[in-house]
Amino acid sequence: MSDIRFDIGSLHAAYRASTDIAEVIDTVLARIGAAGDPGIFIHLATRTELLEQAEALGPFDPAAKPLWGIPFAVKDNIDVVGMPTTAGCAEFAYAPARDATVVARLRAAGALVVGKTNLDQFATGLVGARTSWPIPRNAIDPKLVPGGSSSGSAVATARGIVCFALGTDTAGSGRIPAGLNNIVGLKPTVGALSTTGVVPACRTLDCVSVFALTVDDAYAVFSVAAAHDAADPYSRAVAALPLAARPPVLTVGIPARADLKFFGDASMQAGFEAGLAALEALGARLVEIPFGDFYATADLLYEGAWVAERYAAIRDFFDANEGTLHPVTRKIIGGARSLSAADAFRGLYALQAYKARLAPVIASVDLFCVPTAPTHYTVDAVLADPIATNSRLGTYTNFVNLLDMCGIAVPAGTRGDGLPMSVTLLAAAGRDGLVAAVARDLHAASGLTLGATGWRQSSARPVGASAEDGTIELVVVGAHLSGMPLNGQLKEAGARFCRLARTAPAYKLYELAGQTPPKPGLVRVGSGGAAIEIEVWRLCADAFGRFVAAIPPPLGIGTIELDDGTSAKGFLAETAGLAAATDISAYGGWRSYVSGANAIQRQLESVPSN
Amino acid sequence: MSDIRFDIGSLHAAYRASTDIAEVIDTVLARIGAAGDPGIFIHLATRTELLEQAEALGPFDPAAKPLWGIPFAVKDNIDVVGMPTTAGCAEFAYAPARDATVVARLRAAGALVVGKTNLDQFATGLVGARTSWPIPRNAIDPKLVPGGSSSGSAVATARGIVCFALGTDTAGSGRIPAGLNNIVGLKPTVGALSTTGVVPACRTLDCVSVFALTVDDAYAVFSVAAAHDAADPYSRAVAALPLAARPPVLTVGIPARADLKFFGDASMQAGFEAGLAALEALGARLVEIPFGDFYATADLLYEGAWVAERYAAIRDFFDANEGTLHPVTRKIIGGARSLSAADAFRGLYALQAYKARLAPVIASVDLFCVPTAPTHYTVDAVLADPIATNSRLGTYTNFVNLLDMCGIAVPAGTRGDGLPMSVTLLAAAGRDGLVAAVARDLHAASGLTLGATGWRQSSARPVGASAEDGTIELVVVGAHLSGMPLNGQLKEAGARFCRLARTAPAYKLYELAGQTPPKPGLVRVGSGGAAIEIEVWRLCADAFGRFVAAIPPPLGIGTIELDDGTSAKGFLAETAGLAAATDISAYGGWRSYVSGANAIQRQLESVPSN
Repeated sequence: MSDIRFDIGSLHAAYRASTDIAEVIDTVLARIGAAGDPGIFIHLATRTELLEQAEALGPFDPAAKPLWGIPFAVKDNIDVVGMPTTAGCAEFAYAPARDATVVARLRAAGALVVGKTNLDQFATGLVGARTSWPIPRNAIDPKLVPGGSSSGSAVATARGIVCFALGTDTAGSGRIPAGLNNIVGLKPTVGALSTTGVVPACRTLDCVSVFALTVDDAYAVFSVAAAHDAADPYSRAVAALPLAARPPVLTVGIPARADLKFFGDASMQAGFEAGLAALEALGARLVEIPFGDFYATADLLYEGAWVAERYAAIRDFFDANEGTLHPVTRKIIGGARSLSAADAFRGLYALQAYKARLAPVIASVDLFCVPTAPTHYTVDAVLADPIATNSRLGTYTNFVNLLDMCGIAVPAGTRGDGLPMSVTLLAAAGRDGLVAAVARDLHAASGLTLGATGWRQSSARPVGASAEDGTIELVVVGAHLSGMPLNGQLKEAGARFCRLARTAPAYKLYELAGQTPPKPGLVRVGSGGAAIEIEVWRLCADAFGRFVAAIPPPLGIGTIELDDGTSAKGFLAETAGLAAATDISAYGGWRSYVSGANAIQRQLESVPSN
Repeated sequence: MSDIRFDIGSLHAAYRASTDIAEVIDTVLARIGAAGDPGIFIHLATRTELLEQAEALGPFDPAAKPLWGIPFAVKDNIDVVGMPTTAGCAEFAYAPARDATVVARLRAAGALVVGKTNLDQFATGLVGARTSWPIPRNAIDPKLVPGGSSSGSAVATARGIVCFALGTDTAGSGRIPAGLNNIVGLKPTVGALSTTGVVPACRTLDCVSVFALTVDDAYAVFSVAAAHDAADPYSRAVAALPLAARPPVLTVGIPARADLKFFGDASMQAGFEAGLAALEALGARLVEIPFGDFYATADLLYEGAWVAERYAAIRDFFDANEGTLHPVTRKIIGGARSLSAADAFRGLYALQAYKARLAPVIASVDLFCVPTAPTHYTVDAVLADPIATNSRLGTYTNFVNLLDMCGIAVPAGTRGDGLPMSVTLLAAAGRDGLVAAVARDLHAASGLTLGATGWRQSSARPVGASAEDGTIELVVVGAHLSGMPLNGQLKEAGARFCRLARTAPAYKLYELAGQTPPKPGLVRVGSGGAAIEIEVWRLCADAFGRFVAAIPPPLGIGTIELDDGTSAKGFLAETAGLAAATDISAYGGWRSYVSGANAIQRQLESVPSN
């Protein structure tokens, strides 16, 4: 068995150095044998079939095929031509006529399908134990459940059998197994990856998800797989931007300490605090957020109408074959039969109410950080109490798809007892690149080895912060400063405060004549300039455009040099507008001037009149 | 009875000319008496109550209260304090503790609530005949149904009893009665007007709508009423922009001729063609669109899951009081009891599939024009076949809210038989201002009198086209001019050329030193300035924002005054950036300078070297 590292970069380096693809295929097969776990795969490609896939690729060409020769596994609720789709239920099996859209895209990019992986039946579960195949063994500790529903995909990735694996995620199935196996689980924005050719769980919430050893690999796969698909009514055009460095200033929402739930698992609690400390070390500002509404949203998923989606997805099969289902799955899905259409709409109304209430909360931070799972469970514990343990595992995952958030589960450390500690970064729909960028740095900072492979993280990649999140920095100088009369305009435009700063010592500040409210004008001068205190805010291009369009003369937007050598767009005044203006540069900023002027005004008012 | 015209402009002119508000109130009451129709109102304010409302307004102040002294009626499924809410069902009546949010906003703006109007019970119907009160008489022809469900509101408006009236619209209830009574029916984007305090029909689709005699009045009311309401989970922040003139170039989708349905009503067919000809005369380009998917979407509304929303809205009342409902309403809503939650989700999936398929179709045009109703029905015909006639009336309305479109029904002509012909303009959510702008011109072009009042349309308003479509004008001065090196940046940003123009004679133009490509800088000066030739382009806010963010110093964006007295955002230079710059103002513009400079350069190059 070759010791080739199965991350995309290492494998491509090996191919470039003339490693034969047959050797890679044999390594896959050898690692499957070495794992000795019959629960991982439900169906495996033969060596011959794998060689045929390899043959069809043509010569190594990672520019044309960015996943050339990269082996991957597919959760068995996603169609792959030539392999039956079971959804974890042998009686349900069918032979798909075509690849699921995501599989077709990954194959077109050069990836090799190794096989179909085990799952909680019909993707209903977070434990990995609701299957009539053997339960896949947790790659880190075989006493523990592997997590689900994408159990086999996570274990295959954690063991280095494949470079990545596809899962699905409706309630956490793409995150919990990642968290329990020390790997990365990328749960995209709903609709970013097509669900055409995927057995539905809840069609309004389902995502295809990606497991990988590193964030870079998960994001690379996401970038290849993401595309609008006219055949999927829930498909959305989500831009898979190049994975840029994270923004320099991050506000991260975390559950209020009093609202955190670990069900008595002090190691997980300590591990989560360590993860938060790591985030702070990366420059994040943590903000505790009351989490009651998030939990209440999560409760809707299994207590409310959405179970009916699971039933609707397989109604004919379920009604005809009820006895063949896993007993736990049967009990859950069968519960939907008693729900009426009016119940379904009441559930939708309840969700809409939480969405409306949480929208400003979600918008108040850049992203959220939560534990991926609140605790680990042994297989025995789950089998003894299958519903309650499963439900607890979804504490920090169940609300995510309902609230249209994207997220990524990322290894953040090792607990005191040696078990993996994972956090999940979450953000509003479409911010997949942001959560991945932060997750990448957090993973790097952890120094953890990858999955269960013992491989060290590559240290080649730079870790750092940049301002590239698509928003635009705006320097404000006067009436738009925090607390000043026009600051509300910035907030209405969705702008976020970044930092207090000073200009380079090359400007003069004037109080403009005849302005209501009073306003200053900043002007760059050739000599004799001062450093002026300003504030830097950020807003999106659209809001910035409207904001600029509304600025009255003699003010406008130009480039302002700051005293740290950077520059940003900000308020400047036309020199022609300075007639009758007063040079107030000596105050060092508008705020000092205003408070000084007010002080003078108070003095004047306190003079007794004669 | 006074002959005061009840449009906002006329009534405010009367107030300004010292007409007493008591006289207006007496006119309202006299017109109610003259109408002799006991079916219009379910509850009326007394003269004393109206005088008390008037008293509370304070002196005439249309700047502070844009609807000062404007009488209006409220459909009786919308709460008004002091008047019972019946939803057209006496047994359902309750005394609301507070005004519905929209009513509160209109009252705060000075409007007077005259009373609560009749409706198809629980807003379920398009005919106006499903009520246990007398059926309101169609204001144009009493043999015809008034249309519903907002029957009383439409008739009260058409008769000039009130200036405007609130309706609701889930399937067409804000458009059909407008079409059948020769008035304007504005159906906003779902969520633009709060539904807090409104008895739900289908909560995911319900709108509060506005009836008025003119588009200007309907849009003025919309503008006052529209606001985000945190208490309504379906509320959305929809900008009620000032009603600008319509865009000069319009692409209007119409149902393919083969797909049009008039159920044998040749007069309506001819009337619709005349309406289309009027649109073309306004400069619209008509595009025939296959309408099968729109009709199929419409069919979902009563055949599918959405009936369950009507049941969910009043489930407890319905189950306890079934026998008291109007028999047709009872039959329709009761049908929802047999629908399961899985059925509801299957309906949602079907809608999502149509939405996905129609999204590019809807995006392919600026707006749609459809008949408001396919035909007129007599009261007798509707009573004889209540379901089929109602269903046909919804041909062009039922799909609209499901597809998240906004619209406005506007009188377009008089049919050969003297009955009103109305068209409805429809567009994607948020384009309320666009459909209103086009409707205004179409109404003006029709020359129709208003409702059943005989009042002529005011001819004071200008009719025409402008470029106010939400984009931002950008004045370019140098390297971004047409054909110049950086012009491609504008085109990449999606900018459109508008016009060649000149600045006010208050600027100097410099060639900046050391720029590649060469660039000028425009600076406003206190005296000695010249008029400089520039170009005006337009681009959307997002592109404008990115464009501004990329401008290098010493250039920036400020306000440039043009020689026609208007101003626009455009390129200015910082005075501090003019070191070593050359004053080229005498050339009158960068293009003249460059061609002149090139001429000199060519001369230099043509000098034989020694």
